Amino acid sequence: MSDPQGAASDTTAPELLPKPSDVRGAAERLAGHAVETPLLRADALDELIGGRLLLKAEPLQRTGSFKFRGACNRLLQLDRATRQSGVVTYSSGNHAQAVAAAAKLVGVPAVIVMPRDAPEVKIAGTRRHGAEVVLYDRASEAREALGKRIADERGATLVKPYDDFNVIAGQGTVGHEIVSQCEAFGCRPDAVVVPAGGGGLMAGTSLAIADAWPETRLHTAEPQGYDDHAMSFEQGRRVGVSGAQGQSFCDALLAPKPGALTFPINVERVQSGVAVSDAEVGAAMRAAFLHLKLVVEPGGAVALAAVLAGKIATAGRTVVAVLSGGNVDPATFRVVLNQGDDPAAS
Amino acid sequence: MSDPQGAASDTTAPELLPKPSDVRGAAERLAGHAVETPLLRADALDELIGGRLLLKAEPLQRTGSFKFRGACNRLLQLDRATRQSGVVTYSSGNHAQAVAAAAKLVGVPAVIVMPRDAPEVKIAGTRRHGAEVVLYDRASEAREALGKRIADERGATLVKPYDDFNVIAGQGTVGHEIVSQCEAFGCRPDAVVVPAGGGGLMAGTSLAIADAWPETRLHTAEPQGYDDHAMSFEQGRRVGVSGAQGQSFCDALLAPKPGALTFPINVERVQSGVAVSDAEVGAAMRAAFLHLKLVVEPGGAVALAAVLAGKIATAGRTVVAVLSGGNVDPATFRVVLNQGDDPAAS
Repeated sequence: MSDPQGAASDTTAPELLPKPSDVRGAAERLAGHAVETPLLRADALDELIGGRLLLKAEPLQRTGSFKFRGACNRLLQLDRATRQSGVVTYSSGNHAQAVAAAAKLVGVPAVIVMPRDAPEVKIAGTRRHGAEVVLYDRASEAREALGKRIADERGATLVKPYDDFNVIAGQGTVGHEIVSQCEAFGCRPDAVVVPAGGGGLMAGTSLAIADAWPETRLHTAEPQGYDDHAMSFEQGRRVGVSGAQGQSFCDALLAPKPGALTFPINVERVQSGVAVSDAEVGAAMRAAFLHLKLVVEPGGAVALAAVLAGKIATAGRTVVAVLSGGNVDPATFRVVLNQGDDPAAS
Repeated sequence: MSDPQGAASDTTAPELLPKPSDVRGAAERLAGHAVETPLLRADALDELIGGRLLLKAEPLQRTGSFKFRGACNRLLQLDRATRQSGVVTYSSGNHAQAVAAAAKLVGVPAVIVMPRDAPEVKIAGTRRHGAEVVLYDRASEAREALGKRIADERGATLVKPYDDFNVIAGQGTVGHEIVSQCEAFGCRPDAVVVPAGGGGLMAGTSLAIADAWPETRLHTAEPQGYDDHAMSFEQGRRVGVSGAQGQSFCDALLAPKPGALTFPINVERVQSGVAVSDAEVGAAMRAAFLHLKLVVEPGGAVALAAVLAGKIATAGRTVVAVLSGGNVDPATFRVVLNQGDDPAAS
C-alpha cells in the first residue's frame, strides 16, 4: 500500500493476475477442506422482488465467511521453508479467522493484526484456532505497516486479505460453485451481486462467472460512504474514500479503496456498483432471519440489501446475491431484530 | 384421537405402518420439491463435546421446518376428487405452513386450525401460502375435534400432523438423507438424536436409520414436562403427560402423548428419550447462532440441547442431531440471545 492516494498507475502486468483456470485449480485444491455452501431461496423473497432470487450462503462456510476459501488456497501452496517461519496478516475479523483456521489446518504458526474494536465474536473465533492476536487502534495505527513490521521481524510471510493472486483465486470458488449449482437446475442468472470491501470476492467470482456466462451482469454492493468500487467503476480508475462520511456498521467492508490486483480484474467484468444504507442492511438481515433462517452479518448482507431495496433490476429476472458472512455479535443482532418489520410482510 | 387416556391397545396392524421402502419412495417423490438440507458442523462444537457433531439443518427446508417433507409426500398422493374438495389440518404452526405450501404446490384449497397463541411468524407464514387460517383457544378447545368438524362440514380430507402413513414416510426422508450424506464421506454415526412432539419425525427417521445402520443408537429429545416419549419408552406403552408441569417455550413440541402410528415404529427402534430444560434449549439456540450461523426455533433445538448438556454420550463418538425447524419470532430470539453466554466459549 505504497500508493495511498491512488495516484500511481492502475495497470498490472496480466501475468500477475489470476485467470479462470486458477479458480478451477483452487476449487480442486479446496475440495474436502471448504464447504460447498448451498444456494438458498424463499417464496416470500421471490414474491417481494417479482423475480427469482438465489442466495449463496457463505455464513455456512468454515469460520463463518467466504474468507476461508482464499486463505486456505493460499496457505496450502506455501513451501516447506515458508510454513516453518509462519504467516502474518491484518484483518477486521473474517480474513483473520480464516487465516487462523487455515494455518491450524496446514500446521503453520499465525500472527493476526486486528482492530481493537472488531466484533468480539471475530476476535474470539480467531483465538480459538490458536492464532496469536495483536490488537491495534484503528484511528491511530496503520494495519498494513504494523503487519509488515511483524512479518519482517519474524521472517514470516504476509498474507494480504485481498491483493493476493491465490487469495483471489480461492474466493473465486464462490463463483465457480454458483455456476455449477445453477447449471445443475438449468438456470442462468441475469445478474450476480457481490459484497465488496477490497474487492477480492468479486474479483475471483467475476473470473468464474464471466467465463461461464458472458451475458450475466455483475454488480458490487457496498455500504454508503465506503462505495469506492462504485466510484472507481464510474471513473475507470481506482479512487478512494476518506471514510469520514461516518462509520458504517458493516465492519467487514471498510477498505477505503479497490485493491491494486482486484480492480484490474473487476473493471473488465463488473457493470456497476451500488451503495446501501445501514437501514437497508438491517432490513436485509431481518429478511434473512425470517425467510432464510440464516444469520448474516452487516457486511455480509449488503448484496441482499441492494436487491431488496430495488437498486438492482429484478422484475421477471433471476438474480444471485452472495451472503458473504455471518460473524455478528449477539448484541448487534438483537438491535437489528428490534429495528423494524419484515420487508416481505406487506 | 378417541383414546385420550392411553388405555386402549398400542398394537397397530403392521400393514398400516410405513416401511423403509416407503421412505425411499417418498425421497423419490420429493426430489425437486423438498430441499436436500446440509449436514453442518463446527470446530467449536466438536471441541465442546469431545467428539464429532453433525447437525441436519431443517431450518433451511422449505417453510422453515422438516414438516414440508411429510405434508408434500401426503398431498402429492391425493387423488383428483380429493384434491378438489381440499384439505384440513390442525397444527401449532410448522405443519400448518407445510400443508399450506404443499397445498399451493399441488393446487388444493387448505384450511388450517392453529392456536391463537402460535408465534406470529408461523401464522403469517401460513397465510402467505394462501391457506385459510382458523384460530382456536388452546385452553378451551380441542384442535382435533375442531379440525374433524371442519373437514366433515366441507367434505375435505383431514391431514393429521403425525399419525399418518404418508406423513411419516415423508418425514423419514430426513433420515434417508442423513444416511446418504454420512456415507458420502465414509462416516457411520454412533447415535442420532431427534426432536419429538407426536413422534412423526423420529418414526420416519428411525425407519431409514435402523435399516441402514442397525448398530446406531436412536434417541428422542423433548422439553421437560412434555417428555411423553421418554416415559413411554421406559414403560413400553404409550403414556401421556398432563402438560400441567408448566408451558414450555418449545411451542412445536407440546403434543401430550406419542402417536398411535408413530409409537409402534419408535418403540421398536429407539433406545431412549431425554428431556431438556428451557435454559438448555436457549443455550443450544445461542450455540447455533454463534457457531452454525443458523436460526433455530426452541422446539427445533432440543436435540442439540440434549447433546450440549451432556445427556447423550459423545466422547470420541460421532453424533448426528436434527435441528428440526427455525420458525421463531424476532422478539423470542432477542430474549434468547440476551440470556447467556456461548457454551463453547469456556
